[in-house]
Amino acid sequence: MTMHVFDQAISLDTVAPGQFVGRTHPAYANMIGPFGGITAATLVQAIMQHPQRLGEPLSLTVNYAGALGDGPFELQVTPVRTNRSTQHWTLSVLQNDADGAPVVTTTATAVTAARRETWGVSDTPMPPVPAPAEVARQLLFAQVEWVKRYEMRLITGAVPQVWDGGGDSSLSRLWLRDDEPRALDFCSLTSMCDVFFPRVWLRRAAQVPAGTVSITVYFHAGSAELAATGTGYLLAQARAQEFRNGFFDQTAQLWNEAGVMLATSHQVVYFKE
Amino acid sequence: MTMHVFDQAISLDTVAPGQFVGRTHPAYANMIGPFGGITAATLVQAIMQHPQRLGEPLSLTVNYAGALGDGPFELQVTPVRTNRSTQHWTLSVLQNDADGAPVVTTTATAVTAARRETWGVSDTPMPPVPAPAEVARQLLFAQVEWVKRYEMRLITGAVPQVWDGGGDSSLSRLWLRDDEPRALDFCSLTSMCDVFFPRVWLRRAAQVPAGTVSITVYFHAGSAELAATGTGYLLAQARAQEFRNGFFDQTAQLWNEAGVMLATSHQVVYFKE
Repeated sequence: MTMHVFDQAISLDTVAPGQFVGRTHPAYANMIGPFGGITAATLVQAIMQHPQRLGEPLSLTVNYAGALGDGPFELQVTPVRTNRSTQHWTLSVLQNDADGAPVVTTTATAVTAARRETWGVSDTPMPPVPAPAEVARQLLFAQVEWVKRYEMRLITGAVPQVWDGGGDSSLSRLWLRDDEPRALDFCSLTSMCDVFFPRVWLRRAAQVPAGTVSITVYFHAGSAELAATGTGYLLAQARAQEFRNGFFDQTAQLWNEAGVMLATSHQVVYFKE
Repeated sequence: MTMHVFDQAISLDTVAPGQFVGRTHPAYANMIGPFGGITAATLVQAIMQHPQRLGEPLSLTVNYAGALGDGPFELQVTPVRTNRSTQHWTLSVLQNDADGAPVVTTTATAVTAARRETWGVSDTPMPPVPAPAEVARQLLFAQVEWVKRYEMRLITGAVPQVWDGGGDSSLSRLWLRDDEPRALDFCSLTSMCDVFFPRVWLRRAAQVPAGTVSITVYFHAGSAELAATGTGYLLAQARAQEFRNGFFDQTAQLWNEAGVMLATSHQVVYFKE
């Protein structure tokens, strides 16, 4: 049985406790370096594999300090504080520069937590949308490889066909799953929080260079709810709040087909001009 | 001339490059330990005072790993990577435990950036609200000291008068400024991103214990826009997205009176039952 390409891409070798070696995978290549979502997923993978882990992911912040080059990288993961029901992690990715000196390419923090059943309610219910089978599959922005690893059925907010500066909204909604289908887990959910093409392309109808600076994911589901989602589609929604002086922010929500909110996510993105 | 109490609370002594000593200030005390906003502001202060700083704050994530006790604490700030126009920081707060051993109470990452003028637009315009003078000043939740350091004029989403489980919205909007007035800067803006009482109190009309686990702030304004805001009011808005199994998330926006988006913020919060 062949390992799913997503599992290949996030696989890690343990060097020492909290120290791993990974390598970029061509199937998740972006314009420069790997897709940011796969880097974030690899960080979650390192936490999931850490022998001292308590509980499941609750929050994750990843800062993209510099582009990863194709090839191996080192990943350091430290549980800096363990409480009764939460655990705080710091993480970094390093890669050797041209002179062989290790350079930080990514910093991150995360919190894992032991969840327990409580009162709950959703204040951002899933919007009414057509079912996945009623929405045509599309290949959004075919120029990068990682996009082909996802089945995307876009409901609203496509990549503009004409770059005429005439955009009027930054909202996109799409049905989403791995292609080939793969049962959802914390790693793939993390990656899916970063699948949205730059909101500046949509809002401005201008294809300017853009790249995520920092992304945060809040996990609202535990492993049981992820398992119940299985290989089903997620409804993924993103919109920007403010574009100003070279940066914009984006808020995103991901529900499963049953309407359960799985994750909310935010990012701040660099754009040119 | 007496120093403003906010400046007293975030003041730091430099021990070595990137190593500071601060101390909790009784004027910003919360139920247990200091107000989370003042801790976040102190981290920004450390970055602002760092001799190697490039640019101005763009993003900040603070993870509250454990309660700070009253007294001195150590703050470590490292610029881990400096690019042409962005700089990536890792930060931590430590305090000695009962045995005198240093323990991490807070972890954080931040990005500073050199902003330059570009195209921009707001996709989350300020909602129509009455002017500050038309809204009565209120002391929300008088049981903690730090709340008295802010002038709050609540427009919608007050602390429930009756804890009857009958809440139906998690949205609050208020006009906000320091009391005494103080010209806005990155530190005070950071603190103001955390002034909202727990959304679970409002949505559920139940005053259960709650505390921020992790907060992220995206700064959309540069120092010039902050200076132009001066001692004016900010419109601060927060709402939750999902409450589930002991945690909820919150999104927040802060505009100045002229309607300029200054910051967006997100947090994930622990709650009991």
